[in-house]
Amino acid sequence: MEILRGVEEVASRNRIGVMVSKFGLHDSKAAMDETAGRHPQCVLSVSWLSEAERDRLAADSIPYVVFDPIDDVADGVPYVSATHFRGGQSAARHLIGLGHRRIAMISGPDHAFCLARMAGYRSALEAAGLPVDPKLIVRMQLTREDGHAAAAELLTRPDRPTAIFTANDLQALGVYQAAREAGLRIPEDLSVVGYDDVPVTAWVDPPLTTVHQPLTEMAAAATELALTLGRGEKIPQLGLEIATHLVVRESTAPPPQD
Amino acid sequence: MEILRGVEEVASRNRIGVMVSKFGLHDSKAAMDETAGRHPQCVLSVSWLSEAERDRLAADSIPYVVFDPIDDVADGVPYVSATHFRGGQSAARHLIGLGHRRIAMISGPDHAFCLARMAGYRSALEAAGLPVDPKLIVRMQLTREDGHAAAAELLTRPDRPTAIFTANDLQALGVYQAAREAGLRIPEDLSVVGYDDVPVTAWVDPPLTTVHQPLTEMAAAATELALTLGRGEKIPQLGLEIATHLVVRESTAPPPQD
Repeated sequence: MEILRGVEEVASRNRIGVMVSKFGLHDSKAAMDETAGRHPQCVLSVSWLSEAERDRLAADSIPYVVFDPIDDVADGVPYVSATHFRGGQSAARHLIGLGHRRIAMISGPDHAFCLARMAGYRSALEAAGLPVDPKLIVRMQLTREDGHAAAAELLTRPDRPTAIFTANDLQALGVYQAAREAGLRIPEDLSVVGYDDVPVTAWVDPPLTTVHQPLTEMAAAATELALTLGRGEKIPQLGLEIATHLVVRESTAPPPQD
Repeated sequence: MEILRGVEEVASRNRIGVMVSKFGLHDSKAAMDETAGRHPQCVLSVSWLSEAERDRLAADSIPYVVFDPIDDVADGVPYVSATHFRGGQSAARHLIGLGHRRIAMISGPDHAFCLARMAGYRSALEAAGLPVDPKLIVRMQLTREDGHAAAAELLTRPDRPTAIFTANDLQALGVYQAAREAGLRIPEDLSVVGYDDVPVTAWVDPPLTTVHQPLTEMAAAATELALTLGRGEKIPQLGLEIATHLVVRESTAPPPQD
């Protein structure tokens, strides 16, 4: 919804209609044919656009922009993403600043943005002179269930972390559940930082400290880029990453005193 | 020069004059007072703007944008940078794609962009299943002399790397010199990738493969941001990173066969 809002805002200001098609990783060929068959001025593809799909669009001279690509985009492919490396850094720095020394990360699959978030976390630890303990980095899927499973394991270790940074907010909600089950209070016994700032994070108890991913702004920028390409104009930048920022709520505090 | 070109382009299109002041890390107080005393519509600060300087400008209601900050900027400070994490990734991926397995990095000081370039290099190695050997990562200053010294040491090791990625182009030119002194040919015996794409990289022998830092586009975007702030308008994004891209020239090739 936040993505669509950004697209719609810019498109309607330009008196351009927005069509939404669902072509995902699976039924892409037929859906892409259908999309291209409508002769759009430009295509904004969320997360993914294969080389075959790009070729297909290029053959019809339909310009495209990839929104928050999950894979490395080839140089020259227009894209808009967020500063995920910086986002990971700011989450870890916040926890380090509170005094945490054992900070775990529940990361995600090999998506471009997960790798960048994890690298940012690690870079902040190293810059602060803290050891990066591979045992404190767990790679899971980006679901509440996987966040729960990873945290359940982390929190039963004798040297359990005092803080957990997750690759998305759903995982963080799974951490909440695992902490509850382990009898640990957030933030007194365990600090948690999520990533994305989906609306629910402000409503959970305690409200979640998380890295805001500026989806609406990203979508607006991607739409501007797509429209400029659609008009056949030169674009000033082929790729853009929009700044993330940390939203400090109530799930983070100094670590418990031993 | 590339930065000024981008600033000048956008400013003149908006019929705004550009004043250049040199306030660096050292004599910042007096120079900042002088700059603020001229009542500019906005200030574009290259690399650095301390909290005191930001307070000084805010007190006079002069908006500012930080260009390619060398330090972590606080959330909420408008800035324009480049996708340095992605830049480091693309350099390392290129070398991995050529078949290199022992890829050294000559990195720089603890500047935000150096940390991001180094993290990108490491992330690409790990994503490819290659070990990250700390002995192959050397932190130096961003000079030709330091690039030379680091490479001279790396290239006399019995298990010398087959490729070196440097944090800037000047260091890469130092690597060229060290390779020559060691009797190693570039790219037959050693591949080299720089960072920045300063003009000289196209003229050296062999022309240097390097990550293009889009200084002119970054400066144009920073100026647009500063002008929007100067008009008192809401800005769509507080921070932006402009895409880097790899420029493949002739300093990289598959590693020598044993």
